Amino acid sequence: MEGIAVRLERGGSDSIERLFRPSSVAVVGVSNRPNNLNRFFLDSLRALGFSGSVYVVNARAEDVDGFPAYARLSDIPGPVDHVIVAVPAAAVPAVLEDCRTKQVDSVTVFSSGFAEATDGVGWELEQWLRDWIQNQPFRVIGPNCMGIYRPGVGLGFRPDFPKEPGTVAFVSQSGGMSISGVLMAAHRGMRFSKVVSYGNEVDLSSVELLQYLSEDHESQQVWLYIEGSRAGSQLTAAMKKVAAKKPLLVLKGGMTESGSRAAASHTGSMAGAADVWQAVLRQAAAVEVYSLEEMIDAGLALQWLPGGAGSRLGIISVSGGLSVNYTDLAVRAGFQVPPLSRSLVERLRDLIDMPGTSLANPLDLAAGYFFFPNYPQIFAELGRCGELDLLILIVALEYLILPERLIANIADVLLGMFIQAGRSLCVPMVAVIPRVEDDARRRTFEAAFIQAKIPVYPTMERALRALGHRRRYRQSRDR
Amino acid sequence: MEGIAVRLERGGSDSIERLFRPSSVAVVGVSNRPNNLNRFFLDSLRALGFSGSVYVVNARAEDVDGFPAYARLSDIPGPVDHVIVAVPAAAVPAVLEDCRTKQVDSVTVFSSGFAEATDGVGWELEQWLRDWIQNQPFRVIGPNCMGIYRPGVGLGFRPDFPKEPGTVAFVSQSGGMSISGVLMAAHRGMRFSKVVSYGNEVDLSSVELLQYLSEDHESQQVWLYIEGSRAGSQLTAAMKKVAAKKPLLVLKGGMTESGSRAAASHTGSMAGAADVWQAVLRQAAAVEVYSLEEMIDAGLALQWLPGGAGSRLGIISVSGGLSVNYTDLAVRAGFQVPPLSRSLVERLRDLIDMPGTSLANPLDLAAGYFFFPNYPQIFAELGRCGELDLLILIVALEYLILPERLIANIADVLLGMFIQAGRSLCVPMVAVIPRVEDDARRRTFEAAFIQAKIPVYPTMERALRALGHRRRYRQSRDR
Repeated sequence: MEGIAVRLERGGSDSIERLFRPSSVAVVGVSNRPNNLNRFFLDSLRALGFSGSVYVVNARAEDVDGFPAYARLSDIPGPVDHVIVAVPAAAVPAVLEDCRTKQVDSVTVFSSGFAEATDGVGWELEQWLRDWIQNQPFRVIGPNCMGIYRPGVGLGFRPDFPKEPGTVAFVSQSGGMSISGVLMAAHRGMRFSKVVSYGNEVDLSSVELLQYLSEDHESQQVWLYIEGSRAGSQLTAAMKKVAAKKPLLVLKGGMTESGSRAAASHTGSMAGAADVWQAVLRQAAAVEVYSLEEMIDAGLALQWLPGGAGSRLGIISVSGGLSVNYTDLAVRAGFQVPPLSRSLVERLRDLIDMPGTSLANPLDLAAGYFFFPNYPQIFAELGRCGELDLLILIVALEYLILPERLIANIADVLLGMFIQAGRSLCVPMVAVIPRVEDDARRRTFEAAFIQAKIPVYPTMERALRALGHRRRYRQSRDR
Repeated sequence: MEGIAVRLERGGSDSIERLFRPSSVAVVGVSNRPNNLNRFFLDSLRALGFSGSVYVVNARAEDVDGFPAYARLSDIPGPVDHVIVAVPAAAVPAVLEDCRTKQVDSVTVFSSGFAEATDGVGWELEQWLRDWIQNQPFRVIGPNCMGIYRPGVGLGFRPDFPKEPGTVAFVSQSGGMSISGVLMAAHRGMRFSKVVSYGNEVDLSSVELLQYLSEDHESQQVWLYIEGSRAGSQLTAAMKKVAAKKPLLVLKGGMTESGSRAAASHTGSMAGAADVWQAVLRQAAAVEVYSLEEMIDAGLALQWLPGGAGSRLGIISVSGGLSVNYTDLAVRAGFQVPPLSRSLVERLRDLIDMPGTSLANPLDLAAGYFFFPNYPQIFAELGRCGELDLLILIVALEYLILPERLIANIADVLLGMFIQAGRSLCVPMVAVIPRVEDDARRRTFEAAFIQAKIPVYPTMERALRALGHRRRYRQSRDR
C-alpha cells in the first residue's frame, strides 16, 4: 500500500496527461527479420497517422519499415518522449537504463515474462522493476501490456484500430481484451478517446488512470477490465470518483476460482474474493458486466440514448411470432410493453390501413409493412404519445426478400424511411437486426442505423440486457 | 375436448403421412398482377424442386409464372393431392367446397382474418370452419399459416429455404417463426426433415403432429413453437411421447401477460397460465428455450455432439483476457474448467515449446499460436486424456490479421489444422468465433467448421447456454 501511495504522489495527473501526447516515439525490439511480429507497433503509428517523430532502436539496420534506426536510444537526435520496449524480459532493465539516460517521459513495456511467468525469474525481475521505477523521473506502463491507443494523436498498437477518436475510455489490464474490445466496439459504431492496456502495473496503475479519466472531458464513459489490484481501497475510491461523473462499466476477470487461477498465469494477479469485488463494484455504483459483448452493448445504449429511466417499451415488428416472443423477453427483462390508448390506436389507424396488421403494442405490421409510405409519421405518433419511453424496431431481413422480387429497391426505400423515422423521434429508438441468411445485407442495414446513431443489436436478448443496464444507471442518477 | 378426440380419430398418422408427400399441388389466390405477393408459393415449389404437378386456380390467366392456370379446381385434369388457399378469408369457404368436390387429400389455408382478427367476422368464420371440417374426408392446415416445408420432396413456402433435407422437425404455430427459424438455423448448418406452420389449428393439430413426429425416423429432434392449445392434456401426452424418443425443444409464446395479449391478436390463442405451461414442459421433459436463437443454439449442440453429460470443459484460446473471462462464464454456467494433470502438462510441453503460452486449462496459446505445426496432436492429447469431456476452441479472428502480414495464407493453414484437429478428436468440440471487424472472414471460418460438423457459436455465453441444455438433456436420459 505504501508503494502505491508513493507512486501516486510522484505521478499526478500531469505525468498522465503527458503520456497521451508524446511528440516522439521510439520502438526498441523491432527488426527487418521477416518473422519479427513486433513491427505492428510501427504499422500502427503509420496507419493511425501519428504526426510526431518515430524512431527505431536497432544496431543492425539503417531503418525498419521506413523509420530511421539508431544503435542506441542515446544516438537519437533530439528528445524522445515515449519508448515502446519489445525486447525479451531479461533485456528490459538495460533498455530502461537507457531510457533514464535519454530522459524520456514514459515507457510502455510490451515484453512479457514477468510475474505472470511460471519460471520464478520473471517474478524476481518484476520485483526489481517495481522497486527501481519508484525513484525514476519517468513513468512505466506494464510490463506485459500493449500500452496506449489515442486516435486523437495517432497513437496506438493496432493498424486496424479506427483513426477517428470517440468518447469512450477503456482501461484494460489485458492487452487482448483491449484489442478485442476496441475492434468489436468499432464495428458497432463506438469510438474511443483513450485506451490503456496497463498489464502488470509496476508503476502506472489503474487507480491513477481512473482518477485521471474521471476529470477527462474527452471521455464520456469509462470501461475497466481488471483481474486484480494491490490497492483495494484506493481503487474503490477511484471507481467512485469516475462513477459520480460518468458511466463506469466494469468487467472483472477471475471472479470464479478457475478464472482466478487463469488470471494468475495471465497478468500475475491475485484476483481476490468474488464477494468482496462484487461489494466494491456495487459500492462504487459501477455497471458490472460479464463479457465484452455485454460491455459494448451497454456502452452503446449509454452512448446514444438520451433521456430517462422509463421502462415502457414500444415494439415494432413485421412478424407476429417474433412480436409475441420479444414481448415475453421484454417483460422477463423487467420492462413493460403496455397496451396503447384508444386515441393512439385511432391515430395509428389513420396512418395504417391494412388487413392483418395489429394496431397494438407490439405493433405487428405483418405482410403489409412494405406498402406503408409513412413510417416517419407512424413512428412520430408512437414517440410523441407520452405512452412509451423507448422504441425497439425489429428489422427482420427475411421479410425483404419476397417484396424485392416485386420492387427492386424496396429494401433501400424501407431502410431510408426507418432511418428518417428514427432520426426525428422524440423518444430513443434501438434496432434489433437478427442474423438470418445474408450477412452482407445485415451489415449494410446495421451500418445505416449506426450512421444515424441508432444502436443496433443482433438479438432481442442482448438489446434488452443493454437497455436494462442503461435504465438502472439512469435510475441511480435520478435518486 | 370432444372435438379434438373426433379429429384425432378421423385423422391418424396415415392422413398425416400423406400430407408430407403430395404428388400434385394447386395454388388458389395467385395471379399475374405485379403486386401479388402470394406467388412466393409458386417460386418456392420451383426453387425447392418439387417434382409433382403444380397448378394454379385463376379464371383470368392461362398460366401464372409458368404454371398452368385453370378457372376452377374441378377443371384441373387428374387428381390434386394438396391445395394452398391464399384468398381473402371470406372466400375460403367456397374454395373449400371446391376442394371437397375435387376430393383432395389436404389443404393449407394461408389466408388470415380468422379468430386472430378483431373484426368479429373472423371469429365466426373460424367457428364455422372448425365445425364444418369435422365431417370432411380431407385435412386442413391452418388457417393463418404457411403450411408444409419438406425439402425431401421439394415442398415448401420459401424459395430461399435449403433444398437439402436434414433431421430437425419444426412444428410452429407461427408462420413467421417457422420462416425465421429455418433461415437462421440453415445459416448455422442445420437442415430440416419436416416443418409445419399450423396456425389457428381448426383441424390438423400440434398434438397430431407431435404424435406423428415421435415415430418419424427422418426426424431426430423436434422443435415446437406454440402460443396456445385447446387440448392441454393431450398435448402434454404428445410432448412426452416425443421427448421419450428424441430431444423436444419448446419455445412457448405468450408466457407473460403482455406476450399473451400479443398472442391473442396473432394466432387467436388463449396462451394459458405461465406456471401451468412451465409445469407441463417440465413434466414432458421438454427442453424449454426462450428465443429462436436459444432453440437453434441448443439444437446444434444436440445434433452434432455425441457422448455423455460430463461437465469438464477444456478451453483453448489465444488471448489471456478472453481465457480468464470465458473460464468465469463457464463456471457460472455450471461447468468445470479443471486444472490439467501434471503428466498431461508434460505431454503438452513436448508439443508446445513457446514462451508466453500457458500450459493449463484454459490453454492460452498466446502470441505463438500460429507457429504451431501440430494442432491435431495438441487437440488429440486433450481429447484422449480422460480429464476433459468437451473442448471449446476460441477463434479470435483479430489475432490472424498481424500474422497474415508475414505469411499470406496463415489463416487458411490454421483453419485447416483446426478442422483436422476437431475431426479426429475423441471428445466433442465446439468453436466460438466472436464477431470482430470482418464479417466475411468470420463467415468463411464458420462455414468451414460447419462443413466439418463442428458447431459454431458467436459468443461464449451462447455456446455455454446451448451446452448446458445438451448436458441437462443427456443427464435426464442417463437417469
